Amino acid sequence: MNVSIIGLGLIGGSLAIQLKKNGFTTSIIGVEANAEHAELAIEKGLVDRVVSLEDAIANSDIVILAVSAEITLKLLPQVLDLVDQQVVIDVCSIKRSVCELVSIHSKRKNYVSTHPMAGTENSGPKAAIENLFENKAVVFVEREKSSEKAFKLVSELFVAINMRIIYMNAIEHDIHAAYVSHISHISSMALAITVLEKEKNEKDIFNLASGGFDSTVRLAKSSAQMWTSIFTNNSDNILVVLEEYIDQLSNFKQLIESGNTSEINLLINKANKISKILK
Amino acid sequence: MNVSIIGLGLIGGSLAIQLKKNGFTTSIIGVEANAEHAELAIEKGLVDRVVSLEDAIANSDIVILAVSAEITLKLLPQVLDLVDQQVVIDVCSIKRSVCELVSIHSKRKNYVSTHPMAGTENSGPKAAIENLFENKAVVFVEREKSSEKAFKLVSELFVAINMRIIYMNAIEHDIHAAYVSHISHISSMALAITVLEKEKNEKDIFNLASGGFDSTVRLAKSSAQMWTSIFTNNSDNILVVLEEYIDQLSNFKQLIESGNTSEINLLINKANKISKILK
Repeated sequence: MNVSIIGLGLIGGSLAIQLKKNGFTTSIIGVEANAEHAELAIEKGLVDRVVSLEDAIANSDIVILAVSAEITLKLLPQVLDLVDQQVVIDVCSIKRSVCELVSIHSKRKNYVSTHPMAGTENSGPKAAIENLFENKAVVFVEREKSSEKAFKLVSELFVAINMRIIYMNAIEHDIHAAYVSHISHISSMALAITVLEKEKNEKDIFNLASGGFDSTVRLAKSSAQMWTSIFTNNSDNILVVLEEYIDQLSNFKQLIESGNTSEINLLINKANKISKILK
Repeated sequence: MNVSIIGLGLIGGSLAIQLKKNGFTTSIIGVEANAEHAELAIEKGLVDRVVSLEDAIANSDIVILAVSAEITLKLLPQVLDLVDQQVVIDVCSIKRSVCELVSIHSKRKNYVSTHPMAGTENSGPKAAIENLFENKAVVFVEREKSSEKAFKLVSELFVAINMRIIYMNAIEHDIHAAYVSHISHISSMALAITVLEKEKNEKDIFNLASGGFDSTVRLAKSSAQMWTSIFTNNSDNILVVLEEYIDQLSNFKQLIESGNTSEINLLINKANKISKILK
């Protein structure tokens, strides 16, 4: 099975490691616009060689597009224009606009729209790690628009790296992703900025930071390029969630202002229910 | 060295484990109002026996008050009323109101006001773990109000469990704690409630949750009793930070609404600077 991966960052690089390790393929071709990343990807052994988009497609059975939402929207139609029998996957975090863009492309059947729900706050080929996808969910959207051959092949690929496949329509996916992924990033980033602004006037504020703070702001390290394109391409859903989130914070604020201990206690008890879904 | 710990939860229990493990003391007496917790603490070997407050103080060189802010405000004056030569420590997350409360107590010199900056989202004796304090900071406030003997003994205690001592005044501590600890908890709790509310209408939303979401909402599991008393006892500082946080979120909202990609990108780059302080 000849596999090429376009974009050798956290997701593309980690896919390369795992697909080889789990025996889905023995060699992988890479496409990477950033020369430094290309070099590092070869050094780390993520891919055997880095070639042009055209060469990669011509020599592959499966083409995995592992770039930001913005670049996916640019490259996916170009990739589909170039394919013959090849199967194409994208893995980006928004699905509606990507699916709409290629909905009437003559090669739509060759394309499987997916979102592996895994990641870290790090980016680039140096961030690629083993076992990133282990036992995580991968969402397939618009499954019915892919050919049986393409669907079967891509299912085998994700099963080979031990992911659970979930089916959704693209609209539903984008709403859910806004709630369980996109808003967490805004929440962390805004918190990081709040504390960094304070630090300008009061030195050593981070002397006191411990594990709780670290985990809450961890996602604030995430790639600006990647997340700018997610925030703008899923803006409708994100704005709804962000408004609800600000309302919840304003509710906390109002109860703290009025010193309403019994209501604050009830609110925290409500939040505690999250434990049922945390590992 | 005879040590008693009042409150055998996450902090008190973890202190008991570490003080014995690191050889600061060989036996610890506990005081615990919750009968179930008292039993569990003995079963887990956190303490040798659970006795009354009076007995514990009478038989100790050091008394550690490891209860919520609310209970600290109730118990600390009572404890100081009962001491003779004993040294008293409290470890709660707010310092100004606690210090003010006992500022003119005749035994003020016996008391050392501290805040070990360590914790997890879990509570009760079952949450007590080894190495919770390892290499973390402990804040001493109003150091000058403690006797040299008390200060020296308490310093030795925290050095024995490998903590770094930091000195601050109580007002400064409460501001810093609001920024690097208290706001993280509100941020997590409000996020948990936002997503849990959504789940009422759309099932299976958590199928998509992965590591990023987990780490951002982890603190939402924290004890309602403990955090209600922190939020109300440090309300002035918390309200300032919460307002700044809501402003930052509103800024994100406005930029996403207007599709201002270059400003969103700049904002995320600003948030990325948090990486310099994350481990």
